[in-house]
Amino acid sequence: MNQFLSVLDVPNLADLIQDALACKQNPQGFSSLGKHKTLVMLFFNPSLRTRLSTEKAALNLGMQVISMNADQGWNLEFEEGVTMNAGSAEHVKEAAAVISQYADIIGVRTFPGLKDREKDYADQVIRSFVRYARVPVISLESAIRHPLQSLTDVLTVEEYKKTARPKVVLTWAPHPRALPQAVPNSFVEWMQQADVELSVAHPKGYELAPEFIKDTPVYYDQNAALEGADFVYAKNWSSYADYGKILNQDPNWQVTIDKMNRTNDAWFMHCLPVRRNVVVSDAVLDSPKSLVIDQANNRTYAAMAVLKAMLLAR
Amino acid sequence: MNQFLSVLDVPNLADLIQDALACKQNPQGFSSLGKHKTLVMLFFNPSLRTRLSTEKAALNLGMQVISMNADQGWNLEFEEGVTMNAGSAEHVKEAAAVISQYADIIGVRTFPGLKDREKDYADQVIRSFVRYARVPVISLESAIRHPLQSLTDVLTVEEYKKTARPKVVLTWAPHPRALPQAVPNSFVEWMQQADVELSVAHPKGYELAPEFIKDTPVYYDQNAALEGADFVYAKNWSSYADYGKILNQDPNWQVTIDKMNRTNDAWFMHCLPVRRNVVVSDAVLDSPKSLVIDQANNRTYAAMAVLKAMLLAR
Amino acid sequence: MNQFLSVLDVPNLADLIQDALACKQNPQGFSSLGKHKTLVMLFFNPSLRTRLSTEKAALNLGMQVISMNADQGWNLEFEEGVTMNAGSAEHVKEAAAVISQYADIIGVRTFPGLKDREKDYADQVIRSFVRYARVPVISLESAIRHPLQSLTDVLTVEEYKKTARPKVVLTWAPHPRALPQAVPNSFVEWMQQADVELSVAHPKGYELAPEFIKDTPVYYDQNAALEGADFVYAKNWSSYADYGKILNQDPNWQVTIDKMNRTNDAWFMHCLPVRRNVVVSDAVLDSPKSLVIDQANNRTYAAMAVLKAMLLAR
Repeated sequence: MNQFLSVLDVPNLADLIQDALACKQNPQGFSSLGKHKTLVMLFFNPSLRTRLSTEKAALNLGMQVISMNADQGWNLEFEEGVTMNAGSAEHVKEAAAVISQYADIIGVRTFPGLKDREKDYADQVIRSFVRYARVPVISLESAIRHPLQSLTDVLTVEEYKKTARPKVVLTWAPHPRALPQAVPNSFVEWMQQADVELSVAHPKGYELAPEFIKDTPVYYDQNAALEGADFVYAKNWSSYADYGKILNQDPNWQVTIDKMNRTNDAWFMHCLPVRRNVVVSDAVLDSPKSLVIDQANNRTYAAMAVLKAMLLAR
Repeated sequence: MNQFLSVLDVPNLADLIQDALACKQNPQGFSSLGKHKTLVMLFFNPSLRTRLSTEKAALNLGMQVISMNADQGWNLEFEEGVTMNAGSAEHVKEAAAVISQYADIIGVRTFPGLKDREKDYADQVIRSFVRYARVPVISLESAIRHPLQSLTDVLTVEEYKKTARPKVVLTWAPHPRALPQAVPNSFVEWMQQADVELSVAHPKGYELAPEFIKDTPVYYDQNAALEGADFVYAKNWSSYADYGKILNQDPNWQVTIDKMNRTNDAWFMHCLPVRRNVVVSDAVLDSPKSLVIDQANNRTYAAMAVLKAMLLAR
Repeated sequence: MNQFLSVLDVPNLADLIQDALACKQNPQGFSSLGKHKTLVMLFFNPSLRTRLSTEKAALNLGMQVISMNADQGWNLEFEEGVTMNAGSAEHVKEAAAVISQYADIIGVRTFPGLKDREKDYADQVIRSFVRYARVPVISLESAIRHPLQSLTDVLTVEEYKKTARPKVVLTWAPHPRALPQAVPNSFVEWMQQADVELSVAHPKGYELAPEFIKDTPVYYDQNAALEGADFVYAKNWSSYADYGKILNQDPNWQVTIDKMNRTNDAWFMHCLPVRRNVVVSDAVLDSPKSLVIDQANNRTYAAMAVLKAMLLAR
């Protein structure tokens, strides 16, 4: 694997999941694979789970890890041909090529601005690193996708499913701040490749980008969507149509015990961090049907499987 | 040892001190104990000595270390049952449980707000991590205690004492800023368990909390307190009674050569950082009787002894 | 080697270059030299290349690395004898001595204020660490020198030169911000010791300090300076005479293809980060004659050679 930006970079999803499960069975089983190899992680935006789980994954593989917070005082230029006489001090051309000489794998974390849809959806930061880096680049969440989270989610569904083809419902939920579409975009993109019956529920105006949602069934009625669900995945996102806006904060979209009672005794999932009693009630989150902690645990093994594939490809 | 928040978590203080001394004798003698184990350190407030010495201690034990500055952009919620529609993005319930999956030991550093005494003395941040973490938690200084510093201090007194039961005087000293009571609280708590004759000197209004000071003798006259002292430990703190306030900046409380001349040729100690010529004069700090650098060196071995006890308890 | 602040600390430059080349040939060839040794790097100012390359160098040598961003919330006092009742919380006397107990080598990065020339040129931060540290100190760029960059530059010239004594031209170039003189100061200081024919080109008013430029030929006419050059090294700096000021932003000093055509098919060098189309045109930077990426790669081997010499000296 020479880059990991989306499910499209995965040659065989079933194999990758099996590999992640093998890593989970024996986290130290590949601890010499990364000897003398360095993962450099660049955080243009803050991260807790992604940073810790990916660093732990790399350490499990015997790699060295260098984490850089690139969010302050490191202004990269991403446009071609510009006269750099303003804020940007370095072009990504140099930055990516230079870091490639200190790193065997580069991880990049970035968020969208949520102001200019076309710009965000060009996913310029991560794509520029891929273009100019000379080593594999792993997305630690980009402006429009969060593939390590999605691999984790597919892995978790695989572990907890009780039927061959479980019903998985991604439901929008309220949130006080405007959030990216990266997690839902990526979630549907990966679940479409998995052996699940996927549907999405959200208020009108929250339609995901056509290139992501494709022919996945969409419900504007959360209750109808939840009927018979085996997995309920809650997540807030801001509008794609009215880009970056909060159109709705209706508390009726919060996932509650009443809502969960409509499902087929579903597991509850969320990528975290989660706003308690806004996105989901305490009662659901603290119930034995909540998988959020196990799900976060799987982040390590998802990252291990991807890093391992990159190390083996060198 | 499954948590390290105070001296109450130490089954046998004399044994722990001997263990720290053994680590000092042979810092690399236990370098395989922490193999494949990870220490995650969360800094809600900045740290120099604690971070470096604890990281060094963990590395000496063969552990992997991940340090996170959690002071910016990571707003945890510590209250139960709240609707998280304001500033907090994640509840400590999730954060602590999740980090427990990437860490074998979690270190937490936090300071008090010095505004709400009841809240500070509930020591909510570290106590919440202990409650929700699934791995041992080590205090890297909490709102009201600094146990790694205090273990260091007991260890240093043990090394330098010339009599079986030395006279140890903790004296308040002036400082331009309002500081926590964590170091003096913790100091008296630990020294009360050690084989020393402890007394405390401070101006009126600087009385430590009753649950810490207990029956330790208190002097409002610094000169009287220093008579015959074998160890003088200087430290500023803000008022507990008039909570978080600076009541006194009297330069006569500065530790000077004149003051040291009243003692039994005492050693001078301070936890650092220290304001020169405010808390203590250059002449005392630069004299051969100053132990502050050796004391800071012992931070590594104090941390090693605690981490070692935690690793062995797993 | 017990300190690395300038070329004056290098006993034999030719040997150090050969050592760096040996490290480049076999980066893992000395991976047990630094076992159980710790490099602590203190960044009073931000760094990308220096941090990553020095960390990578230390890891290649088997060292442990702890990086501290000391730019926020860590106010050190550098003056002697002051009453520390204002902003500074700790004196470098304690800080350097304490860190020496957790580190086997200390790296320090600092920038000049560019306001008080005398103060900047006293290079107080790094000199104070050297004075009070008890372990070797390595400059990761100081107020007036950047020796790891200069060693890299000498090494790169050595690798790419086609004649025994190549003509090396350091040319000033425009920049929108006032930059330190550390790179050009250090560059001339090192090149004066190397087997090259060095000259410097800059507009009037940009003369380097006499103790650095010495008898190196200076041109105010960039075109004349570039005639027959084998290496063109571009760099902006602010005025030394009118200290810290920008006196000139003339775009005619930008290094372009026309300018490069005046040379002896010269290699182009820059320490990075570089402002494209301000300091140098895209066409030059993207041409096969640009060495900037290779040059940055050599940072790792320059740092390895210095760290190695320090480890061997212990």
